[in-house]
Amino acid sequence: MQFYENGFHPGNPRINDPKDRVIAPPLKQPLPKKVDVMIVGCGPAGLNLAAQLSKFSTISTCIVEQKDDRLLVGQADGIACRTMEIFEAYDFADQIKQEAYWVNEIAFWRPDDQKPENIVRTSKIQDVEDDLSEMPHVIVNQARVHDFFLDIMRRGASKIEPHYSRKLLDLEVDYNHPDYPVTLQFERLDSQHLGVIETVQAKYVVGCDGARSTVRKSIGRELVGDSINQAWGVMDVLATTDFPDIRLKTAIYSNNQGNMLIIPREGGYMVRLYIELDKLNENERFNREAITPDSLIAAANRIMAPYHIDVKEIAWWSVYEIGQRLTTAFDDSETDREPHVFLAGDACHTHSPKAGQGLNTSLNDTWNLGWKMAHVLTGKADPSLLHTYSEERQKVAQILIDFDRELSTMFSAKPKSADNPDGVDPAEFQRYFMKSGHFTAGVAIHYPASRLVGKDQHQALATGQILGKRFHSAKVTRHGDAKVVHLGHSVKADGRWHIFAFAGKEAFMSESCRVKALCNFLQEDPHSPINTYTPKGSDIDSIISLSAIFQEAHRDVEVSAPHPLLQPLKGTLGLKDYEKVYSAQTREGSFYDKRGIDKEQGCMVIVRPDQYVADVLPLDDYDRLIAFFKDVLIKPAD
Amino acid sequence: MQFYENGFHPGNPRINDPKDRVIAPPLKQPLPKKVDVMIVGCGPAGLNLAAQLSKFSTISTCIVEQKDDRLLVGQADGIACRTMEIFEAYDFADQIKQEAYWVNEIAFWRPDDQKPENIVRTSKIQDVEDDLSEMPHVIVNQARVHDFFLDIMRRGASKIEPHYSRKLLDLEVDYNHPDYPVTLQFERLDSQHLGVIETVQAKYVVGCDGARSTVRKSIGRELVGDSINQAWGVMDVLATTDFPDIRLKTAIYSNNQGNMLIIPREGGYMVRLYIELDKLNENERFNREAITPDSLIAAANRIMAPYHIDVKEIAWWSVYEIGQRLTTAFDDSETDREPHVFLAGDACHTHSPKAGQGLNTSLNDTWNLGWKMAHVLTGKADPSLLHTYSEERQKVAQILIDFDRELSTMFSAKPKSADNPDGVDPAEFQRYFMKSGHFTAGVAIHYPASRLVGKDQHQALATGQILGKRFHSAKVTRHGDAKVVHLGHSVKADGRWHIFAFAGKEAFMSESCRVKALCNFLQEDPHSPINTYTPKGSDIDSIISLSAIFQEAHRDVEVSAPHPLLQPLKGTLGLKDYEKVYSAQTREGSFYDKRGIDKEQGCMVIVRPDQYVADVLPLDDYDRLIAFFKDVLIKPAD
Repeated sequence: MQFYENGFHPGNPRINDPKDRVIAPPLKQPLPKKVDVMIVGCGPAGLNLAAQLSKFSTISTCIVEQKDDRLLVGQADGIACRTMEIFEAYDFADQIKQEAYWVNEIAFWRPDDQKPENIVRTSKIQDVEDDLSEMPHVIVNQARVHDFFLDIMRRGASKIEPHYSRKLLDLEVDYNHPDYPVTLQFERLDSQHLGVIETVQAKYVVGCDGARSTVRKSIGRELVGDSINQAWGVMDVLATTDFPDIRLKTAIYSNNQGNMLIIPREGGYMVRLYIELDKLNENERFNREAITPDSLIAAANRIMAPYHIDVKEIAWWSVYEIGQRLTTAFDDSETDREPHVFLAGDACHTHSPKAGQGLNTSLNDTWNLGWKMAHVLTGKADPSLLHTYSEERQKVAQILIDFDRELSTMFSAKPKSADNPDGVDPAEFQRYFMKSGHFTAGVAIHYPASRLVGKDQHQALATGQILGKRFHSAKVTRHGDAKVVHLGHSVKADGRWHIFAFAGKEAFMSESCRVKALCNFLQEDPHSPINTYTPKGSDIDSIISLSAIFQEAHRDVEVSAPHPLLQPLKGTLGLKDYEKVYSAQTREGSFYDKRGIDKEQGCMVIVRPDQYVADVLPLDDYDRLIAFFKDVLIKPAD
Repeated sequence: MQFYENGFHPGNPRINDPKDRVIAPPLKQPLPKKVDVMIVGCGPAGLNLAAQLSKFSTISTCIVEQKDDRLLVGQADGIACRTMEIFEAYDFADQIKQEAYWVNEIAFWRPDDQKPENIVRTSKIQDVEDDLSEMPHVIVNQARVHDFFLDIMRRGASKIEPHYSRKLLDLEVDYNHPDYPVTLQFERLDSQHLGVIETVQAKYVVGCDGARSTVRKSIGRELVGDSINQAWGVMDVLATTDFPDIRLKTAIYSNNQGNMLIIPREGGYMVRLYIELDKLNENERFNREAITPDSLIAAANRIMAPYHIDVKEIAWWSVYEIGQRLTTAFDDSETDREPHVFLAGDACHTHSPKAGQGLNTSLNDTWNLGWKMAHVLTGKADPSLLHTYSEERQKVAQILIDFDRELSTMFSAKPKSADNPDGVDPAEFQRYFMKSGHFTAGVAIHYPASRLVGKDQHQALATGQILGKRFHSAKVTRHGDAKVVHLGHSVKADGRWHIFAFAGKEAFMSESCRVKALCNFLQEDPHSPINTYTPKGSDIDSIISLSAIFQEAHRDVEVSAPHPLLQPLKGTLGLKDYEKVYSAQTREGSFYDKRGIDKEQGCMVIVRPDQYVADVLPLDDYDRLIAFFKDVLIKPAD
């Protein structure tokens, strides 16, 4: 799609008239008196959590924002492959794919050895390595991501709309309160209700309220980290230029004029520039007033000489100071009590935007928290499960902070030269960038062994599905309708657990087939996790969904052959679900080869509701299967 | 996506609450007194035309419908590959792909030789042959297709909403009227305005008002064709069955119980059944009253014995009688006068639904008409262009009618057996079905040589881009941003002509490069079609868009190298368009190999606004290029 050729206009670019892209803000309703979950802040962390919780009709969720309407411009724009996989779980990845810029290649530029005042291209490299993810790395306005989440929330089972113009004044936790321990006070900021105070009682509060988080302060957590000594300007522009790589992601090291990052944007014309500003002395505060759009454009032109950029329109611009900071904990828990207040996104970690990790990490924070909170609130799990949020996510944030410090330092350095022997060799920066590809794509997140991640006893049965990392999708052929699909896309944002049973060498559903035996165990044994944790009257796959993958070609197994548990009768009408059995074979090869599944033994892969691999087990290890779920789920009340 | 497991509900399945899927009908506005185009009927033909015309802000379009709201259930459901290509031109193919059932395989069943009262499977075959189209053959409720068109209309430059509850009473043409020769009278049918008569004057009228078209009768055209002697029942059901191929498109020949077609539907649970009813004697009229849903279900069960289907819910059902009929002409023109009234869709051709061609042919009728009408109304072409609509589409309809007669006859026959030596061998039906794959996919449409299609003088330069057939897309690598894209997807529903200049053996943009010479001609020669037909002040590609494809790998040509006409400055800001230059190479090979482009000579392929190949020319055949457009376009008034 091409758009913005006549200027930038926020909103859905599929609508011709920019005026119609502005949608009415939600009705100004009072806040509810009591809610299960109060989310403070409508950034990517808050909206993703609300979107996830909106899938559950019995959970009441309220989300508030200090600003008076949805975001329209600016802020983040990089969407990592892993984040796109999450969007797929919400069914809007295709629309983002259509609308966004795709990062296919990166270009690196450095000073010309012969004429150092001019830059020259070092190389172009592929951005995302082959088969790292089935999803592309894309760039699109954060505001558009918000719009898609707002759609999911509005359309969800619990129909959530944000409450805007709410300022959090105070948050108190009464740990002795049996049901709604957190009391929040908000001040209304809109002119019709200016100064009105609203009090809300909540079971859980999630502070997605940014780097200056009031929620964080109210629970006595702090952002700890570096002092600041480097400022950058960022601007989204519509411009013409003779610089050849303006439609590629590009890192430019100039000799004496600073460095610059070019990020092409959606629509074919817009581009984002990250422009290095003058270094500050220690303890010197940055003077924002001194920076103007014109000074940023002038700096960009100095950096990219001998090329020139002629800015026609500025859609958005800002200045930021680099610093890496992290909270001491992601919740309010102590050793003797469960958490009730959580932090997510910038409220717990801040860093530079240059690795494109802010939106992605924030969104992944609440992707980790959402299903756990839903489990507790729908009675599937004990509140102690919520401890695992801080445990899992703080480690991720620490790695991010460390990575960002290294990347920012390298990219804020002068290029190495005879005059500057201590500088960074741009080739080294390029190598670092390539090496970090897994990390920046979001697929390096690796949760350690815990009650939610097994201890690596049977990893050899599925060497490409690493315990604690996200389930790595690949194509399979769906048995019922012969459609080639991505196996990982069957894991939706619905809070369900998945068991993928990969058949071993025995013919599928033959007498010796261990997937068949597993089905019998799961269906008939009173101790099977499905029998133990599925509430009466619910669909048999509503807590744990079993799917099977066989090695034969899809036409070589009869559709009527699979065990009834693999074609369960569902819904109020008792209709048969034909989308749980797959052939590993497609024209592109076998899933077993691509993801290292043991062809002799087969295996079970247990996948968490957030798509992470919880455990890999032999097909007949029923004891460990029982034990795993016993550590996570609780029996329904009936 | 899986949906309808708790019953069928119309509307967007992405919305959780079925009540919210119902959207408010548009405001009840009076009809305008004068319009450029009056479309009668909100079926696929009418809505596609309105969607196409909505792209032009200066064209006033009105669309009316006798029913009181949008379609919610029933009617057609098969979307041919070619139709999906058209949806891609509107940018909603991805959403249909996500929502629809994909026809991957067809299963054929016939009576068991040993036990003829039981059916047995003959075979399963691939539905669409490889590389026939980049789009799948899918099945989705016609009502959802309407919804997407309604969105396009609403979001378009001229913002069109249908006027419901309008019955056409009368249509008169005054061929001497200089501007608005057609006068229409409508009666309002809604309770608030019951009986109110509205008079509208229109430049052009398009009758998309179905088999009993009032527009058709008013211009004295008739549907001519066969008498009817075979009735079929059709029903969309939610059901359980032990029949193994219920999620595959399936044709069943039973021995003595009639035949049946199974079409799986969107959402994973619903299925459509076409059930043969008893043969009628000649001149016997069909008694609809005698057919009930229960009688249809009983017939289905008899046909599919020994299998059984248990219907839980009927979403929609109907009975139809097969007959193939066609109008004498598709417009009101005579040899001495231009057409002002057109017919499209069922108003000019009716046939059985079994080849899935009704919606597709109707929609392709107005896909052919829409850009021509827009050309005339925006002053790009002379009204005589409109003659080509009937010329091109009536031939297509005749082929459809003939095909449908043959298919219906074969599928209404009894299977050949010892008892019935005159029957049809199901294997022969299967062969016929496979042989007809190009036709049913919609890619066999082949417009003959005319002012809009060249005379086959240089077909050898692009053997895979057949003159008069649709431009056959394949992947290329976009030069500016290294994205692998489908070349054909650059032809959008915007009324523009395209010239694809495929470079020959000379290095791209070298002195001897004939694409460079072509660019120079097009930019500098006052007789070049671009200079002749582009209005002053319009984007240089607003009438004819030039793109170039080179044979080198994309990194081997500098992005700054292409001729300025290939990177034109566009829009009110004069921004550079980087999406007109492509490398033929992707990992999947070269476009030249896939589509038979001459690697030595290269060529120009002229593509019409409806994606059909108008001509293939040598890169330096400027005379023919000038002559071609001279036959089609007129100079702007300035």
